[in-house]
Amino acid sequence: MGILKRDILEGSKKDKISSVLQSCLVDLVDLALLSKQAHWNILGARFRSIHLHLDEIVDIARGGSDEVAERLATLGVPADGRAKTVAEKSRLEPAPSGFQDVEDTITYVADRMASTIFGLRKAIETAGEICPITEDLLIEISGGLEKQLWMLQAQEVESSKLKA
Amino acid sequence: MGILKRDILEGSKKDKISSVLQSCLVDLVDLALLSKQAHWNILGARFRSIHLHLDEIVDIARGGSDEVAERLATLGVPADGRAKTVAEKSRLEPAPSGFQDVEDTITYVADRMASTIFGLRKAIETAGEICPITEDLLIEISGGLEKQLWMLQAQEVESSKLKA
Amino acid sequence: MGILKRDILEGSKKDKISSVLQSCLVDLVDLALLSKQAHWNILGARFRSIHLHLDEIVDIARGGSDEVAERLATLGVPADGRAKTVAEKSRLEPAPSGFQDVEDTITYVADRMASTIFGLRKAIETAGEICPITEDLLIEISGGLEKQLWMLQAQEVESSKLKA
Amino acid sequence: MGILKRDILEGSKKDKISSVLQSCLVDLVDLALLSKQAHWNILGARFRSIHLHLDEIVDIARGGSDEVAERLATLGVPADGRAKTVAEKSRLEPAPSGFQDVEDTITYVADRMASTIFGLRKAIETAGEICPITEDLLIEISGGLEKQLWMLQAQEVESSKLKA
Amino acid sequence: MGILKRDILEGSKKDKISSVLQSCLVDLVDLALLSKQAHWNILGARFRSIHLHLDEIVDIARGGSDEVAERLATLGVPADGRAKTVAEKSRLEPAPSGFQDVEDTITYVADRMASTIFGLRKAIETAGEICPITEDLLIEISGGLEKQLWMLQAQEVESSKLKA
Amino acid sequence: MGILKRDILEGSKKDKISSVLQSCLVDLVDLALLSKQAHWNILGARFRSIHLHLDEIVDIARGGSDEVAERLATLGVPADGRAKTVAEKSRLEPAPSGFQDVEDTITYVADRMASTIFGLRKAIETAGEICPITEDLLIEISGGLEKQLWMLQAQEVESSKLKA
Amino acid sequence: MGILKRDILEGSKKDKISSVLQSCLVDLVDLALLSKQAHWNILGARFRSIHLHLDEIVDIARGGSDEVAERLATLGVPADGRAKTVAEKSRLEPAPSGFQDVEDTITYVADRMASTIFGLRKAIETAGEICPITEDLLIEISGGLEKQLWMLQAQEVESSKLKA
Amino acid sequence: MGILKRDILEGSKKDKISSVLQSCLVDLVDLALLSKQAHWNILGARFRSIHLHLDEIVDIARGGSDEVAERLATLGVPADGRAKTVAEKSRLEPAPSGFQDVEDTITYVADRMASTIFGLRKAIETAGEICPITEDLLIEISGGLEKQLWMLQAQEVESSKLKA
Amino acid sequence: MGILKRDILEGSKKDKISSVLQSCLVDLVDLALLSKQAHWNILGARFRSIHLHLDEIVDIARGGSDEVAERLATLGVPADGRAKTVAEKSRLEPAPSGFQDVEDTITYVADRMASTIFGLRKAIETAGEICPITEDLLIEISGGLEKQLWMLQAQEVESSKLKA
Amino acid sequence: MGILKRDILEGSKKDKISSVLQSCLVDLVDLALLSKQAHWNILGARFRSIHLHLDEIVDIARGGSDEVAERLATLGVPADGRAKTVAEKSRLEPAPSGFQDVEDTITYVADRMASTIFGLRKAIETAGEICPITEDLLIEISGGLEKQLWMLQAQEVESSKLKA
Amino acid sequence: MGILKRDILEGSKKDKISSVLQSCLVDLVDLALLSKQAHWNILGARFRSIHLHLDEIVDIARGGSDEVAERLATLGVPADGRAKTVAEKSRLEPAPSGFQDVEDTITYVADRMASTIFGLRKAIETAGEICPITEDLLIEISGGLEKQLWMLQAQEVESSKLKA
Amino acid sequence: MGILKRDILEGSKKDKISSVLQSCLVDLVDLALLSKQAHWNILGARFRSIHLHLDEIVDIARGGSDEVAERLATLGVPADGRAKTVAEKSRLEPAPSGFQDVEDTITYVADRMASTIFGLRKAIETAGEICPITEDLLIEISGGLEKQLWMLQAQEVESSKLKA
Repeated sequence: MGILKRDILEGSKKDKISSVLQSCLVDLVDLALLSKQAHWNILGARFRSIHLHLDEIVDIARGGSDEVAERLATLGVPADGRAKTVAEKSRLEPAPSGFQDVEDTITYVADRMASTIFGLRKAIETAGEICPITEDLLIEISGGLEKQLWMLQAQEVESSKLKA
Repeated sequence: MGILKRDILEGSKKDKISSVLQSCLVDLVDLALLSKQAHWNILGARFRSIHLHLDEIVDIARGGSDEVAERLATLGVPADGRAKTVAEKSRLEPAPSGFQDVEDTITYVADRMASTIFGLRKAIETAGEICPITEDLLIEISGGLEKQLWMLQAQEVESSKLKA
Repeated sequence: MGILKRDILEGSKKDKISSVLQSCLVDLVDLALLSKQAHWNILGARFRSIHLHLDEIVDIARGGSDEVAERLATLGVPADGRAKTVAEKSRLEPAPSGFQDVEDTITYVADRMASTIFGLRKAIETAGEICPITEDLLIEISGGLEKQLWMLQAQEVESSKLKA
Repeated sequence: MGILKRDILEGSKKDKISSVLQSCLVDLVDLALLSKQAHWNILGARFRSIHLHLDEIVDIARGGSDEVAERLATLGVPADGRAKTVAEKSRLEPAPSGFQDVEDTITYVADRMASTIFGLRKAIETAGEICPITEDLLIEISGGLEKQLWMLQAQEVESSKLKA
Repeated sequence: MGILKRDILEGSKKDKISSVLQSCLVDLVDLALLSKQAHWNILGARFRSIHLHLDEIVDIARGGSDEVAERLATLGVPADGRAKTVAEKSRLEPAPSGFQDVEDTITYVADRMASTIFGLRKAIETAGEICPITEDLLIEISGGLEKQLWMLQAQEVESSKLKA
Repeated sequence: MGILKRDILEGSKKDKISSVLQSCLVDLVDLALLSKQAHWNILGARFRSIHLHLDEIVDIARGGSDEVAERLATLGVPADGRAKTVAEKSRLEPAPSGFQDVEDTITYVADRMASTIFGLRKAIETAGEICPITEDLLIEISGGLEKQLWMLQAQEVESSKLKA
Repeated sequence: MGILKRDILEGSKKDKISSVLQSCLVDLVDLALLSKQAHWNILGARFRSIHLHLDEIVDIARGGSDEVAERLATLGVPADGRAKTVAEKSRLEPAPSGFQDVEDTITYVADRMASTIFGLRKAIETAGEICPITEDLLIEISGGLEKQLWMLQAQEVESSKLKA
Repeated sequence: MGILKRDILEGSKKDKISSVLQSCLVDLVDLALLSKQAHWNILGARFRSIHLHLDEIVDIARGGSDEVAERLATLGVPADGRAKTVAEKSRLEPAPSGFQDVEDTITYVADRMASTIFGLRKAIETAGEICPITEDLLIEISGGLEKQLWMLQAQEVESSKLKA
Repeated sequence: MGILKRDILEGSKKDKISSVLQSCLVDLVDLALLSKQAHWNILGARFRSIHLHLDEIVDIARGGSDEVAERLATLGVPADGRAKTVAEKSRLEPAPSGFQDVEDTITYVADRMASTIFGLRKAIETAGEICPITEDLLIEISGGLEKQLWMLQAQEVESSKLKA
Repeated sequence: MGILKRDILEGSKKDKISSVLQSCLVDLVDLALLSKQAHWNILGARFRSIHLHLDEIVDIARGGSDEVAERLATLGVPADGRAKTVAEKSRLEPAPSGFQDVEDTITYVADRMASTIFGLRKAIETAGEICPITEDLLIEISGGLEKQLWMLQAQEVESSKLKA
Repeated sequence: MGILKRDILEGSKKDKISSVLQSCLVDLVDLALLSKQAHWNILGARFRSIHLHLDEIVDIARGGSDEVAERLATLGVPADGRAKTVAEKSRLEPAPSGFQDVEDTITYVADRMASTIFGLRKAIETAGEICPITEDLLIEISGGLEKQLWMLQAQEVESSKLKA
Repeated sequence: MGILKRDILEGSKKDKISSVLQSCLVDLVDLALLSKQAHWNILGARFRSIHLHLDEIVDIARGGSDEVAERLATLGVPADGRAKTVAEKSRLEPAPSGFQDVEDTITYVADRMASTIFGLRKAIETAGEICPITEDLLIEISGGLEKQLWMLQAQEVESSKLKA
């Protein structure tokens, strides 16, 4: 028996789900931190528009990490979202330090959003075989991030490519 | 001249202020992360009351880190709130992993709030000699955290001590 | 590579999903237009009640079309919701012109809601094999429309049938 | 043909889905009633915190029963949530009468939440093979209750167990 | 002495008031359940208008049952609003099962509202001699239900009768 | 010079405008009173829908009378909206006493709305030649009432007429 | 049997209550009309303060008349709040025509509020013997008006009197 | 004649009512002050839950004192809620100084709430014979405080007593 | 006589007004559809700013089409806003298919807004001679669109032109 | 062609309209500044009432100046609301410096409101012949100011004059 | 070590700060009580304006006392805001009993506000040398009261003085 | 003695503070006017983003000027924010007339914000020695403007400089 009296999932199922949830948690916390980092350190002509957009991404990443961590707790497994764990375990590329221009900011955040989404979609596959409630929770988070990724990378497209 | 055309503080003043702001930023991001960690992993009879309280502390720590980082940017200095930087530079003791009972949770979060406040009060002294706007910003953050610390540690006091 | 740098779905999956999404988009835009048409041109004793109900259906159809079109864009595929495309490609029967009485209005809108739902449920099947995020998005839209369809067609039921 | 002119599901599918929905409806109405009962009759040192928590559970159980009953109606099948039906058909253990202390209240409500969730998860399996819209609706209700169950049973965990 | 240290009413007064409050509680919970039942299972031309009205009656009946049960607790007496108690002790006629047309729905709900009001008005008389606070609380609930009853039964009146 | 130090319109213009405003004021106060009367005394199968609609008409008539009376005051002329003045000077047919069925209610309120609109449109013509601000104020009131009149009389239209 | 199927009060009680309610209704409609009249036609140094206060009195009088009229309908008796009835039956002194200064306005409105309150208090006595729900409704209206009357007539008190 | 031109109650009635209102006013102001005192000085494991509850009691006591004092003014009698008057005339036991633990805080506030309620119920009796509006106002205040008293003293009940 | 019993405009006036309203309706529905199309399919560096702006234009065009269609119904004339009618009768140039860059999007939407405004201003002239209420309604719509057109085409202006 | 690609008005019409709009803009900015000046520097017995009223006038003047300036931009003409332009071109008398008593404040602000209204009404005449959208915009601003002027100068009227 | 485990200020600093905070607390509670007293007992021509203003002062005084008392608790020192303490220790002159006219009310409240501000400014000096967080908290309270004092005493200024 | 009976600051302190406050007031009014000017007359590709940002700066400048002027009044000194005074005394460079492109607009507004901040920081020094409440008020205004200045000038930074 787990730490909680009433288990929702049996042992091995719980282990598999917990493992993928913990990985997604770390990515999402990292994404929230680096999107805030980008929000603070962006400079250039389109500053305001992207500065505001990045804060919406922070909100989605924070909301998602909260949902994932509380799902872990619901399953009777502790979540780990501490700075050190995130620094060591995140599957996202590190963010650059210092001020960044608008173009570079868009690119590095979009790349890390794509990695987070890749991790979430893998987790959705695992969850789909074990626990539909967890699957649904991850689908909602990924759906939200995918929409934001479109809007961010839409800003990388050059007219020449569209007219080609 | 700095990266921005119009400097609010001259060079050496800016350096001193930036240094203390960056240290406080790292502490505040760490405090937000570990208070969320505590919010997720607390277990025991008074779970609900402290679980809710910890989220208010998270909001104050996040709001404070945002204010500090944007003050750095206002002074023309990049902020660094990335996971790795926080893991390495935070002046707070690491938080424990795994589930924690209510008493231990209160104690470890309160200790780290006290450290954050200690850092902020040192920074207020430095800022007080250089830049009243930065000083005021740090005073507001510390004031908010001190009030929360009271309410958290009020819960550690035993009746026997009161009646002694 | 698509127009966006980071593809969420590979080519053939993207093509299949896009095709069903585009068909649903056209139906949903048409449903929104004809429900507004019905909202304006209904006449008869129960005018107010149905007039108000139709505007709720318009909101759901508009919201659904927006979700579907932005999902297409998220996948890197342009959406087509122009009047001409809707007029030519919609799978719904055309709506009648001129004023309509309450009974006829209920019947023709309910028929077209049923067609839209039929199209959405087919699309859910296709999406279910390829992309769970798209599937979930379509489920939510269909669920909302199915509930409204119940409330609309509940008004067609005659007492005699209930007591038979 | 059913009572409504446009059927969303064919006969046998509709029968299977309706049967599981009706069972969940009865459980959810019962859970709402007994959580209110607990909300009124709890006494003891942690009264306020649990009293407030129980009302959130009531809201979720009521909202869930409404969603389930309206899904039945959407499928053209009458829902039955009358007191007598609930008293006879609920799969939850009866709640105790009279005042209850905080510990007993937590335990008996948590046990009945677990039963409700067990019933919902069985229903999700049945629905998953027949109707994705119904499946999704049940997933959302179960997900909400599972999160509340965690928070309720978190309060049963003793420190000694955590430190063992 | 009662279970609470400070009694608001002495023993025999408390017994009389508690007895009438408990009876009204059961009626009000039953009225809430059967009005929801009616809200789900009504069919016919005026569906939407009555469907919405019934939910307002549910809100008033739920609010009233909460007020009555908490008044019992305030007096130091446990309330009983469990499904089984309601099924056995309610003074309202049972509600019919299955779909009902608009006319029958209005009639059966209005009849049960009238019974609930009759019970409340008897209780107001008893309370009026013993406890003005309880009396006032019951007056407010009955007043609210009486207004809703007018609006419900207004819909039963035939023009011929008005012109007679 | 008028009672106010700074006149917006000269004498004769002011007289003409005031006269038509006073007449509209009386009609609008009367319309508000008789729509409330209808709101209270309507009985029959569609009670709820029309009862709610009539209160929206009351709001528009009250708002309109307030605008008109304050326009009079703005021009330095006292407004007269007392019961006796309304009873004597209103150009609307009196409303019937006692309960009225839904059909009769719709007809008598719609007739009086049409009279009010007729009066307003005459006043708009007068105002159009003298004072564009007054004209605009009356246009807004008439526009609002005309829209409500459509929705009220839409409920008088019989299907047979539509299909003729 | 009355026009409604389920009578709340028997014949002679209903007659007595209805009679006093109808008288109060007429007074309250008259008070609303003449307070609006005062709101429009007041002039003088304290214009703004009293102009705003009068609109609060209008709201209370309108709300009260609505409550009283709907109570009549609830008892199965038609309400009569038409201009002509108000002009003929109101127990309040007529209001003066034309602009009025602040002092006179306060006095004439306060006098009519006092008359309305006098009528309500008589009605409360009658209702107290017959129907506690009606009594409570009238108490609430009178209580609200009495508070406003204090604030209005507080403005008539001269310093000399206070210091005498 | 009183200080106000229009008296609502005659002399001797006014004197009796005023006297009981003034006593209740003093108790309510004292209750508000000592509940704030308790809110500030409570310490111990359940700090947060009771700290928050006490502020709700403060709001009710403040709201009640305002209603009572303005009722006095409405009757033309000055209210006295000054610190000195409260210190001398309050019928509540003084509150202890210094920090208090949770149990003692609950007990001393609950005792003083009970005294305030006792005073209010006596006043309700007096008012019931003289002025139903004043009676109703006091009933509402006492009803609110009684509900809060239940929730506060519910926290004093020990499990052993419940199981005895 | 028209379909509604009380005509606001006589026959020939109604015909003229209806004809211009119907043309504007078609343009406004088309503008709403193509602005949504642009909102979905825009790509490029300034994506976010224009994407958000386009949704405000959609809201204004939808709101305007609703006002115009309901004005038609108010005049007793059916409105036609169906996809096929819009595709055939709209006076706006068709919108391009597929993704469009920011510059082209601004230009094609601005061109179609200018056409819609041109149509509205012609309609205002016609209405000005016949019906001031219709005129005012069209003025408000055109005014809103003209302001949005300024803000859209402001983004086409090149610095060189400003400095020339 | 103007600075914007799509002109709403042709050259000479645009010139005439722009000229009157620019004059009104300057007056409205001046009125906003001097009403704020009055809001700050008023002293005397009725301070609070007028201080609050003046801020409502500031809001209307600011809102009006914004509408007028954005109309200029919409027509492709730059607006000029700079301090120097206002100081030189405003048609309003200068405001006095230093503290002012209530009477003088009312008079000098009311005089300047009357001048602003005079300017607006002249502009409405010019606009009426050229551009109905501009005309309507100016009518709305003047209507709002005229209502405020009434309420301000109502406070100058002496009782003696009313009773003469 | 204090009652709380983690001290923010060392002993002697804490003593000095606590002493001045306690004195300000008593003044602020007294100011809140006497401003309410004034709010209830004011009579005269400008009643409404000052009655409303006094309630804003009550809110500021109450908010300030709460901030000061919770700062004391944060420092580990109990606050004392009991009626008796306030009656004995307040540094404000007592308020008069009975009804007061507007002029006298303004004067006595303004005098006591000035005393409270005097105490706060002394406390700010003391705090400025010891604890910038406490200093900032007191500055905010004094700043708010000083602004209200201006608005209150602005009403004492006579025109003759302004024109001298 | 000043114009107000109770002086917060003595003569010479008041003179010094007033002088710097008056200078800041003029700058802030000028900044508000020229930021509105920029908001209206900006043209170019990034129009929308900067147009919206400028209105936030207007709000801060207006709010700041109001705070400063009311602080002057609080000290008993009249404020002067009239157009002529601003035109003559403002320490900001005049703003250019006519349309301006985005780059020039950013530069000229940012320059004037920097001047305003420079003035405020000088004033903070003066105030710091005399009046901490005034100092704190100016710190808050400067802090808000400094943050906006960062966001405005962030848009001037070129990528080449960042990568240098």
